[in-house]
Amino acid sequence: MKGSSYSGLLERHNIHTSNVEHVVQSLQSAGIEVRVVRRGEYDEEVVRWADAIVSAGGDGTMLLVASKVLNKDKPVVGVNTDPERSEGHLCLPVRYTHAFPEALERLCRGEFRWLWRQRLRLHLEGTGINPTPVDLHEQQLSLEQHNRAHRISTVDRQQRAGALHPAYSKPSLLPVRSLNEIFIGESLSSRAQLKVFTPRLFLHRASYYEISVDGGPWEKQKSSGLSVCTGTGSKAWSYNINKLAEQSVEEVLRIGASQAGVELPLSREFLEKVTDDYNASLVFAPDEPRLFYSVREPISNRVFSSSRQRGFASKVCVRSRCWDACMVVDGGTSFEFNDGAIATVTVSEEDRLRTVLLDQ
Amino acid sequence: MKGSSYSGLLERHNIHTSNVEHVVQSLQSAGIEVRVVRRGEYDEEVVRWADAIVSAGGDGTMLLVASKVLNKDKPVVGVNTDPERSEGHLCLPVRYTHAFPEALERLCRGEFRWLWRQRLRLHLEGTGINPTPVDLHEQQLSLEQHNRAHRISTVDRQQRAGALHPAYSKPSLLPVRSLNEIFIGESLSSRAQLKVFTPRLFLHRASYYEISVDGGPWEKQKSSGLSVCTGTGSKAWSYNINKLAEQSVEEVLRIGASQAGVELPLSREFLEKVTDDYNASLVFAPDEPRLFYSVREPISNRVFSSSRQRGFASKVCVRSRCWDACMVVDGGTSFEFNDGAIATVTVSEEDRLRTVLLDQ
Repeated sequence: MKGSSYSGLLERHNIHTSNVEHVVQSLQSAGIEVRVVRRGEYDEEVVRWADAIVSAGGDGTMLLVASKVLNKDKPVVGVNTDPERSEGHLCLPVRYTHAFPEALERLCRGEFRWLWRQRLRLHLEGTGINPTPVDLHEQQLSLEQHNRAHRISTVDRQQRAGALHPAYSKPSLLPVRSLNEIFIGESLSSRAQLKVFTPRLFLHRASYYEISVDGGPWEKQKSSGLSVCTGTGSKAWSYNINKLAEQSVEEVLRIGASQAGVELPLSREFLEKVTDDYNASLVFAPDEPRLFYSVREPISNRVFSSSRQRGFASKVCVRSRCWDACMVVDGGTSFEFNDGAIATVTVSEEDRLRTVLLDQ
Repeated sequence: MKGSSYSGLLERHNIHTSNVEHVVQSLQSAGIEVRVVRRGEYDEEVVRWADAIVSAGGDGTMLLVASKVLNKDKPVVGVNTDPERSEGHLCLPVRYTHAFPEALERLCRGEFRWLWRQRLRLHLEGTGINPTPVDLHEQQLSLEQHNRAHRISTVDRQQRAGALHPAYSKPSLLPVRSLNEIFIGESLSSRAQLKVFTPRLFLHRASYYEISVDGGPWEKQKSSGLSVCTGTGSKAWSYNINKLAEQSVEEVLRIGASQAGVELPLSREFLEKVTDDYNASLVFAPDEPRLFYSVREPISNRVFSSSRQRGFASKVCVRSRCWDACMVVDGGTSFEFNDGAIATVTVSEEDRLRTVLLDQ
């Protein structure tokens, strides 16, 4: 991390603070009543009070801000007060960070469009317990505490693991909407396992689950996890999971050309173009009413095979066959997701987040 | 996991036990003195006592067995007593599991070749402390305990993080040899961070480090981690990190053909062949005296870029720029690897493991 020293962090914190000050004063100068709240004070009451919300931070802060805005009428504007560290994909162009009055002026004059960011909703069933979200930011939990926080039922794990069918509880709609992605995978603790079968992969225990896309047949899979993302999220973790390096593209084309007995012009320029086009196909617009699922590091062997590693859909169902897994929403909120539980991810128009795109 | 119920596990344990019995009796019937030790009792003394070692379990057990055999004269033979769950890549063909006397006979008659499995050695410097390996299998640690076990020095983290240069301690050769791979990445706890910059990615915090290949220039990288593997390990995790799905190969060829204005025969058969060839290029022979490094999910942005995502080499140096990272050897032993520490991975002939390849 650039400036990973303590003094470096302090410096960036000071820059952030003065950037926040600039935004607050610009708003107040324009006659707008402002309430400034820190991460820990930000809640539904604050959201209700506001006519609009300005997120002052990086992309991570935008995710946090959006997580409590479940109403598509409440505009959210992001200002990147930490440009050294955050790409600011979800924020206004970085030039407005020090010239916020200009942004305000455009907003007041209507020189902008609404940018609707489609989000995902999540139903959960078959756990037999009320799902309690664990906020990973607020609580600063150690992994042990994180796991304990999930364990709010005294149902015997062995009993649940032994069940052939999930407990027939109604699917409950979780009180979250994903702006980037929902990631499903094994948690990374090495808590009690039968000693004979101690998993040898501590930091990357394989995830076992079944997946059904758009109501299609269930398919068993084993992988490093499953990502289900939005258009917004297609530029985030999902992008890094799926993108190819020029080196890989070159090798595929070389083998393909050789196999087909044709000539391909494998110049640097050509390879760069093909690579960029391939990677661009992984990204889609924030307002598209669909989701994109991708399997991370699928493991194919005698038992498991995946037909498609990724694709677009309107609905994805996942049934956990994991010992100790969770679903993580936007890297910030997690839900227990163990053997038998079924998660359903869908796209609903009312789950869009209202953000702005200023005219050039 | 197939049979992830408690009764399923018990059944597999019983199968394992009877398979072990079969091997033991076969050896005793052949007049060979046998000592049977469990995981927890397996140590250097046992290895010294033995003329040869038979690993009875799956591939995970073979890794554990090999981890205490640092002498290339001691033959190790793997018998897959858990074929339902383990692929047994490191073991004898599965038909010998129930017909071990046949395997013994071939061994006694010399109807086999030595299969040398090249391993990797690891030097560590710049931590200012003696590196204590943490055995992740034996200790069944929670992640919190795992981190505590690493913290055997009271050197102030901030001081170390603030240092521009690593503490000048001599590089120490670690008492481990990697049979599959060394994986370097951020640990996955969310312990104390300055609240302003709480990392939003709990389960997949990016790893920051610098890498130098074969003595080349240092390059800053940000990714989901770095894998350095052997020929043996090239069929394990490294393979799953790097392999491509037919779907991806098809897309690359489609774009490449279109871009170049040529026709490629994108039949299922053709795509399967190209995909298989590509994936086969990721695998190399266990006895090859070289290592293969690959970057998992490289993150490219304004600050970081990777020239090559993977490649063969004789030596790889990695300098940590991580908050809380570790090096994990064969998924079983981990070492703290924080800001400033430098790991050097090399290939040495004396680090080969002596295993057998029975004649057909």
